[in-house]
Amino acid sequence: MELTMEKIVNLAKARGFVYSGSEIYGGLANTWDYGNLGVELKNNVKKAWWKKFIQESPYNVGVDCAILMNPQTWVASGHLGGFSDPLMDCKECHERFRADKIIEDYMDEHGMEIEGGSVDGWTKEEMVDFINDHNIVCPSCGKKNFTDIREFNLMFKTFQGVTEDAKNTVYLRPETAQGIFVNFKNVQRTSRKKIPFGIGQVGKSFRNEITPGNFTFRTREFEQMELEFFCEPDTDLEWFAYWKDFCINWLKTLGITDDQMRVRDHGKEELSFYSKATSDIEFLFPFGWGELWGIADRTDYDLTQHQNTSGEDLTYFDDEKKERYIPYVIEPSLGADRVTLAFLCAAYDEEELEGGDKRTVLRFHPAIAPVKIGVLPLSKKLGEGAGKVYEMLAKYYNCEYDERGNIGKRYRRQDEIGTPFCVTYDFDSEEDGAVTVRDRDTMEQERIKIEDLKDYFEKKFEY
Amino acid sequence: MELTMEKIVNLAKARGFVYSGSEIYGGLANTWDYGNLGVELKNNVKKAWWKKFIQESPYNVGVDCAILMNPQTWVASGHLGGFSDPLMDCKECHERFRADKIIEDYMDEHGMEIEGGSVDGWTKEEMVDFINDHNIVCPSCGKKNFTDIREFNLMFKTFQGVTEDAKNTVYLRPETAQGIFVNFKNVQRTSRKKIPFGIGQVGKSFRNEITPGNFTFRTREFEQMELEFFCEPDTDLEWFAYWKDFCINWLKTLGITDDQMRVRDHGKEELSFYSKATSDIEFLFPFGWGELWGIADRTDYDLTQHQNTSGEDLTYFDDEKKERYIPYVIEPSLGADRVTLAFLCAAYDEEELEGGDKRTVLRFHPAIAPVKIGVLPLSKKLGEGAGKVYEMLAKYYNCEYDERGNIGKRYRRQDEIGTPFCVTYDFDSEEDGAVTVRDRDTMEQERIKIEDLKDYFEKKFEY
Repeated sequence: MELTMEKIVNLAKARGFVYSGSEIYGGLANTWDYGNLGVELKNNVKKAWWKKFIQESPYNVGVDCAILMNPQTWVASGHLGGFSDPLMDCKECHERFRADKIIEDYMDEHGMEIEGGSVDGWTKEEMVDFINDHNIVCPSCGKKNFTDIREFNLMFKTFQGVTEDAKNTVYLRPETAQGIFVNFKNVQRTSRKKIPFGIGQVGKSFRNEITPGNFTFRTREFEQMELEFFCEPDTDLEWFAYWKDFCINWLKTLGITDDQMRVRDHGKEELSFYSKATSDIEFLFPFGWGELWGIADRTDYDLTQHQNTSGEDLTYFDDEKKERYIPYVIEPSLGADRVTLAFLCAAYDEEELEGGDKRTVLRFHPAIAPVKIGVLPLSKKLGEGAGKVYEMLAKYYNCEYDERGNIGKRYRRQDEIGTPFCVTYDFDSEEDGAVTVRDRDTMEQERIKIEDLKDYFEKKFEY
Repeated sequence: MELTMEKIVNLAKARGFVYSGSEIYGGLANTWDYGNLGVELKNNVKKAWWKKFIQESPYNVGVDCAILMNPQTWVASGHLGGFSDPLMDCKECHERFRADKIIEDYMDEHGMEIEGGSVDGWTKEEMVDFINDHNIVCPSCGKKNFTDIREFNLMFKTFQGVTEDAKNTVYLRPETAQGIFVNFKNVQRTSRKKIPFGIGQVGKSFRNEITPGNFTFRTREFEQMELEFFCEPDTDLEWFAYWKDFCINWLKTLGITDDQMRVRDHGKEELSFYSKATSDIEFLFPFGWGELWGIADRTDYDLTQHQNTSGEDLTYFDDEKKERYIPYVIEPSLGADRVTLAFLCAAYDEEELEGGDKRTVLRFHPAIAPVKIGVLPLSKKLGEGAGKVYEMLAKYYNCEYDERGNIGKRYRRQDEIGTPFCVTYDFDSEEDGAVTVRDRDTMEQERIKIEDLKDYFEKKFEY
């Protein structure tokens, strides 16, 4: 089977995973709405992250910080000064381009090696020189008459209060990480955690990207699941390795296989100046490899920046060592929309059945499947008994009750939305107090007493 | 015990429920960050809403829509035209006021009756006339030299894309409801639901309020839990009553008592022109009665507006009745931050114990308590066995492991954060494989076998 983005997008739209945002108004470029199944899938992904990274972790606690933050935060983090794209217009056809992308495309085309993998570190002058030296023309009209390169800040700007002036300018956070850093002392105090410990956060961030795309992979509004793990300065590389493994294992336990992912360690020349080590976990999407998770050893950079900018003491006193220091930070940063899309792609399968029939099946791990159990009365006449089974199971799981169409068609529909189990209530059920449980993947069926269903499923859904 | 906001704010800050946003930078007016306990409490409240309104409901499904929407949405909903505050400056002292508030304050002071409860429906001219007729002066400097009244739109504005012009202007949604309305057809199609059915959403909204306040009660950035319930035109008042009861019961099952809440039905003159009925469920905060939940019969207003503005057919064909109509809508709209604050206030208690000791205890319903179980080894020497109990329970519940201080102090601390149960692992535990379980409210203790703990707590936390 060849998996294409078209198949994913069509299924997503047809079954209620993802719709275009504001669709009845012709959409709003690059926004997406999660539908009745998508919201369950994404919520389950977030819950699975929280369970393993926060709830079960002896080290970590969570926070939920405001999207609007004091602008000094972005001075300290460097986002106000440096978080920008280098833009350039063609004076002939008035198209707008990212200078770095034009250069990278040119290098790709001419088989030139890009030092460090990208043009990221170049100055404006270096980019202009390269474009002039190689006589690069407008990709759109073929002429060569560019404006100067201007830096375009990627933060969304808005105004809090009545007047739209500099004093009232605030930004939508471009990452959830900074809410954690500015609260480092607060959380350490109220949780009474000792180093090493971590603080996690799930929430929306916003980046005014010039070239978003690939469905929900890169969007201007997106959700992050970030952990900032604070440790003693000399232990950072150990913890970096620990969390890298932890992240890989999390993906594996939820069904991502070795051939669908790879880990890319950044070379020295590629690292941010403050980072001692960075690795990306990438997933093989139908459109190619794409970054899911960035794991970075950020040293003491962030806390130091905030300490210098705010004038607040952000050091930590180590009781046992009788030492005071600014903790080092390991940051595993994951995109919730991206990893949800990855799980959708990884789950997608088409299968030829005995007899030549075909079925589409989403092989979600039970913990993230949007519908856990389909409850299907064999006949509409059995609604009362089947309804009671539905009611009982819906107390514990997101279930779907479906009485429309023949049973084979209903199984196919549950397969296509990735429901791990179907419970069929038939005429015998009235007599023997039992139902048939069908497994999505093996399609095998078992007869289970209704009174045993709760325990039966509890084991199946353990995560 | 007299409960004050000061007590709540202090406890919230001291124990990690809520901190001031961007605190190390002197804050950002009226933003708040949920700390290590607050995030758990608020997440539990959201989960409890989702469980009863979506998961267990045979009628409802969920969605999760983008915060940034096509601006035509706000044309249709009326937010671009009419969602504003009437502002007025004093030319003498340059203070800024809401004209409606100045008038209401004047009426209050002079014992005048406000028709319909507020000045909401008045035109600018009516407000100016009233101010002139009654010779109302500047509350700040006492002079009378006001500017004209200007309408100030409450939506936060930002720019998507490179240029900051009208074409690129987008708004942060002021409510989650509209994301549901524009997706009515999509969700109906993909969920295959028939009328009556509802669509729920939990998510952030933003309103550039002039006078936010009362801690997390009224904030510019806030989270909503909204349900839009679509029904046949003549059945709307029945469903209005149904959902009103449902909401009241939800609050009650989570521990809000009759004397802490009241229902205020809007009078005819107070209703929006499109609404047939509206009720507010109010909670008695330490600062007075405040609205938690607005339940409105919005008739077919929203879908009609979107149909007219978008040109898309938003009618529904009723299979059974062979009739086509625009469904009526019942909207129970709840503020997640407000109801979380209400639960915190409702839970707060101070108790004098035998012997004269006092304890502060948060009597949270177990379903929303941020920490479900405190695991306390009687001595640090018992860390290994107690650690195993913690690990086992942390698979199911958010637990806290605490080995610091004498056991009485540790109980007090768990009481103060509302932990319903403490498990104490003592020297006998090594022998008899059992632990002591202490109940927060009764302070009674029971000896339970470690192997029975899972079942024991499952019953305690059933919701």
